[in-house]
Amino acid sequence: MKLNDFLCKKSEWLKASGPKSNVAISTRARVARNVAGHLYFNRADNTERKRTLQTLVSAVKKTKMLKKSLYLPINDLSKLDRNFLVERQLMSREHMVDVEHKGLVVEENEIVSLMLNEEDHLRIQVIQSGFSIMDTWRILDEIDTELANYVSFDYSDKFGYLTSCPTNTGTGLRASVMLHLPILSMTGQIENVFNAISKLGLTMRGFYGEDTEAAGDFFQISNQVALGHSEMDVLDNLERILNKIIIREEASRKELFLKKKEEISDRIFRSYGTLKSARIITSSETIKLLSSIRLGIDLGLIKDISIEKVNEVLLCMQPAHLQKINGREISPYERDVKRADLIREKLVKK
Amino acid sequence: MKLNDFLCKKSEWLKASGPKSNVAISTRARVARNVAGHLYFNRADNTERKRTLQTLVSAVKKTKMLKKSLYLPINDLSKLDRNFLVERQLMSREHMVDVEHKGLVVEENEIVSLMLNEEDHLRIQVIQSGFSIMDTWRILDEIDTELANYVSFDYSDKFGYLTSCPTNTGTGLRASVMLHLPILSMTGQIENVFNAISKLGLTMRGFYGEDTEAAGDFFQISNQVALGHSEMDVLDNLERILNKIIIREEASRKELFLKKKEEISDRIFRSYGTLKSARIITSSETIKLLSSIRLGIDLGLIKDISIEKVNEVLLCMQPAHLQKINGREISPYERDVKRADLIREKLVKK
Repeated sequence: MKLNDFLCKKSEWLKASGPKSNVAISTRARVARNVAGHLYFNRADNTERKRTLQTLVSAVKKTKMLKKSLYLPINDLSKLDRNFLVERQLMSREHMVDVEHKGLVVEENEIVSLMLNEEDHLRIQVIQSGFSIMDTWRILDEIDTELANYVSFDYSDKFGYLTSCPTNTGTGLRASVMLHLPILSMTGQIENVFNAISKLGLTMRGFYGEDTEAAGDFFQISNQVALGHSEMDVLDNLERILNKIIIREEASRKELFLKKKEEISDRIFRSYGTLKSARIITSSETIKLLSSIRLGIDLGLIKDISIEKVNEVLLCMQPAHLQKINGREISPYERDVKRADLIREKLVKK
Repeated sequence: MKLNDFLCKKSEWLKASGPKSNVAISTRARVARNVAGHLYFNRADNTERKRTLQTLVSAVKKTKMLKKSLYLPINDLSKLDRNFLVERQLMSREHMVDVEHKGLVVEENEIVSLMLNEEDHLRIQVIQSGFSIMDTWRILDEIDTELANYVSFDYSDKFGYLTSCPTNTGTGLRASVMLHLPILSMTGQIENVFNAISKLGLTMRGFYGEDTEAAGDFFQISNQVALGHSEMDVLDNLERILNKIIIREEASRKELFLKKKEEISDRIFRSYGTLKSARIITSSETIKLLSSIRLGIDLGLIKDISIEKVNEVLLCMQPAHLQKINGREISPYERDVKRADLIREKLVKK
């Protein structure tokens, strides 16, 4: 298996096969681990970093669960390939910096990925389609457990797992769900959601776009606390609160659609018409339009494409993907043209 | 023949069959005449107005050319029907006011119409497809000549035809061409055109939209002077200048399309996508989008609809037409919904 093989296939989490895929795009969870007896990444020199990397790679190779995975030394990758992996959510943007002795392990369905020598020695990530917290955790826990057979992690009876940054110490766990909340956003209810979850130990941020501006109404909600709670407590809390948000978005969709059928239909069909027609389009506009289309599919207005297809376009229309698909580096202006071409190919010539 | 028969048929001038239909929508000409020995409309009482109307109707009935025309007493028409006739450019908005003893004669192909007891006793109008000044004049002159056999018009050897307002005295002729100038407008050259023609005795105004705002880049250019020049001088001058404007618009289209193919295509295809998708749309937005589509057809980008179809939609999407088509009065909001329905019917289910 090679990196470019990913280009032609769909990530498992794009398939919109998970629960509540009408509102929940994907569920992610990761744990942070450090190898016992090794200096932490920020304190380690190159020799130590190399030793840590070798220890981890050899442990990964012994596992059954990651047998079919691809190992990528970050140093060997082009900048474009690194961005490509970030866009696929297989590694963090931070992992692209200071790349000597860093590695990435990607399981063939892209459900599991391991960052080696990121902020912590090891970050294990699992990503699944839809609203699937417990199932995501189950896979993550299994891999963590299997790996622990071949490598010893820093652990304190008092604190739990020790990590480079104290915010991760304890469980080392961060779980998040990417939600599509167009109606809570349109009606301004999103502010209430934001205020409420902050008090409940969760954080929310726009998934696309910079900081405050949440292009296309995609929001990532995750736990903030890793210390002093068990994994199950953290996940239960997250699941319970997200469930309420999802139900509220669903109810608001039905309610608003009954009240303002024409306005909602107009917005949705215009978005679809524009996406199928544009010859130049930015990623930010694309996200906004795809957001409307995703809503239109859920409301039964758009019947000729699937949510899976929308998820796929959301992924492929990103800059590094566009360049990989075209086999070369492309200027921002030309990308807007190529993006429009790609979208028409996916939505019109389907 | 009845008024509602017009609803189901296309006006002759919509057919985009005339010369330069890519740039010129239609050519109109009218003459103003007053019946000798009758008080002018503004000075006449009801008895005198009735006498004038009867004199003109009986003269029209004697002509061969208007044998198959429809006679409509304005007083008998509903407000909706009057607006419908204004939208079809068969009569002026002024003809809707003070409606007692006013009449309209419409020839079956809507090429010729006569307003009886408007500002002047008689206004004869001819409208033709495309850029067709001399042909339009020829028809107008024939009707004027035939009518003069049966009714005597006020004429002074010194001034020419006498009219209610001195600006029309002389030939009584006003000729105009409706031009579609999207590129001269987009590139700002329209300002130069505007300044130049003002010095040459012509006036220009946006055809749709209020005064200064010319929705959709449709401009009506007409002669300003009626006194001291022969009809042929006036028409020659108009034809010569308009010909230059049309050539300039055509050349600018080609030039700009070569330079900015993607931007122009993007604008055109987005407009087409929006028109085929919208569920609520105002007339002002419709005009703007149809303007782009008309350009797209001329540039060979849009191949699946004709300029005739664009002209037809421009006519039918107007408020009174929408209400006539739906057979009832409709609120402005609902009109925007019905307009979107009608447009999709014409452009998608064609």
